Amino acid sequence: MASDDGTGEFVRDPLGVAERITADGSSPWPVEAGRYRLVGARACPWANRVIITRRLLGLEDVISLGIAGPLHDERSWRFHLDPGDVDPVLGIEYLRAAYEKAIPGYDEGVTVPAMVEVSSGKVVTNDYAALERDLATQWRALHRDGAPDLWPDPDAIERIGEGIFHDVNNGVYKCGFASSQAAYERAYWALWARLDELSEHLATRRYLVGDTITQADIRLWVTLVRFDAAYHGHFKCNRQKLTELPVLWAYARDLFGTPGFGDTIDIDQIKQHYYGVHTSINPTGVVPLGPDTADWLVPHGREELGGRPFGDGTPPGPPPAGERVPAIG
Amino acid sequence: MASDDGTGEFVRDPLGVAERITADGSSPWPVEAGRYRLVGARACPWANRVIITRRLLGLEDVISLGIAGPLHDERSWRFHLDPGDVDPVLGIEYLRAAYEKAIPGYDEGVTVPAMVEVSSGKVVTNDYAALERDLATQWRALHRDGAPDLWPDPDAIERIGEGIFHDVNNGVYKCGFASSQAAYERAYWALWARLDELSEHLATRRYLVGDTITQADIRLWVTLVRFDAAYHGHFKCNRQKLTELPVLWAYARDLFGTPGFGDTIDIDQIKQHYYGVHTSINPTGVVPLGPDTADWLVPHGREELGGRPFGDGTPPGPPPAGERVPAIG
Repeated sequence: MASDDGTGEFVRDPLGVAERITADGSSPWPVEAGRYRLVGARACPWANRVIITRRLLGLEDVISLGIAGPLHDERSWRFHLDPGDVDPVLGIEYLRAAYEKAIPGYDEGVTVPAMVEVSSGKVVTNDYAALERDLATQWRALHRDGAPDLWPDPDAIERIGEGIFHDVNNGVYKCGFASSQAAYERAYWALWARLDELSEHLATRRYLVGDTITQADIRLWVTLVRFDAAYHGHFKCNRQKLTELPVLWAYARDLFGTPGFGDTIDIDQIKQHYYGVHTSINPTGVVPLGPDTADWLVPHGREELGGRPFGDGTPPGPPPAGERVPAIG
Repeated sequence: MASDDGTGEFVRDPLGVAERITADGSSPWPVEAGRYRLVGARACPWANRVIITRRLLGLEDVISLGIAGPLHDERSWRFHLDPGDVDPVLGIEYLRAAYEKAIPGYDEGVTVPAMVEVSSGKVVTNDYAALERDLATQWRALHRDGAPDLWPDPDAIERIGEGIFHDVNNGVYKCGFASSQAAYERAYWALWARLDELSEHLATRRYLVGDTITQADIRLWVTLVRFDAAYHGHFKCNRQKLTELPVLWAYARDLFGTPGFGDTIDIDQIKQHYYGVHTSINPTGVVPLGPDTADWLVPHGREELGGRPFGDGTPPGPPPAGERVPAIG
């Protein structure tokens, strides 16, 4: 998943399969209900972005969801939470098999999220950013009634999203996987400068762009929700805990309680993944029992800032029966 | 410094040299001004107990202090902060040399604190518990005017100290060095049960035993002051940070501001030691930049609980010029 360019800096591997699923005939993969299966993992923030997007837009009946377990080896995520350790729809034990079907001899990273064509068993794309955008735009005809517009202002979302990606989403990985002190410190200062800036922005605004939830909020939130459980200690992002940052902590709790966000989160799987898989930074594989998560449900008070979470739309209903996560608290 | 008995539990090595220095002729090592040098390290909580005791009792002119640096190899602490990497009084580079002078072929752990006879260069004792007690009792004739009584109620101090030792002082090590999930979890629950109990005790009492500072407070405090910098993340003691435990955090700040406590602390050396030396739990050796330490100086409000910090005595003056630590904040 990562390489080192000699400076001790973490460098994210390129995406392996980056085709698109479109409604306009511009790609060989058409939008079609029931044709694709989204493979995610509760642990992974990149998968979480697409899983939240799918929930908010009500695409659960249109695109099924496979969940790889938190533990994988260096070659592949695997379906170790499913009966017989096999995904019940794709019939595979290792996600790598779907990559190899798409590209014989595939030797790049096996990442989630991955969108897989069910009939052929081939990965169509693991490009999470294109995927979340296409779900919101190309799949519009299949959205639920009342689905929100997650891209009301694409330029503003991409502008703020760029800093979030480099300094926060990927920034925590750059802190955690730095193999030199200097590389770690560069990533740490960039992370905290960005979080301070976002905190100031959010002190008087309920959401990042406009007065509704957008894709920008999804991007920031997937890192915040994992912050104290994984990044604070395991990745040494430890200036403060999220719980010590009043604005971002309230913002994170607000979204946690919003349908489509907190109901996609399994903190135990997050901890099992980070502490169990990264033996290069946690050789014993021991998974911490902390942090205490009871305060996620404490009132956040951000309704006072106004905002219309779903704009002219409505919140999604509860997750389908097979996709429920354990209650937090 | 540690072994594993097969259960994945951390087991502290036995002390290597445990003689006593006495005023009553009961040992070959008499109390005598200028005869001994205390070797400590700013990083080490066990050394910190004795360093604080020496400060409170005003023994700085009677027993000189050597400071091993935060980084050591598996064989020995070493004097890498001193000019030429050599202790200026003992003339040695590795503390192991003083152990070997005492016991030829010495092959046990080289720990701090260690009391060394200057003329012979031999370690007399590395028994921190006996040492702190003997400083308070056997060395009484050499205490400063106004030195407090640190053992006003030995039974009560030992009783509360026993739980602090097993579950807190050593408990954080049991969390951090557990090599099995089960051993870690046992240590974690014992640590937090004890901290909750101590927090309740201290909610209405300024100090642990009676209404003055005693050796019991010194024992608890040396772990609390390192908690967020080292044990919370590095040792996975992460139910909460100390800063999230209102009573213990205020108690720790109260003592931090008490002469003889905070003026013995170097947070950077603490972090360099734990993160730099324990490659079995931090293979990259990267030292975190956090946590933010500014709040150590925020008013604690515990004067309201009353108490007489030094009893009928007085606070010590500032540390000698050669023993100053960097300001926190």
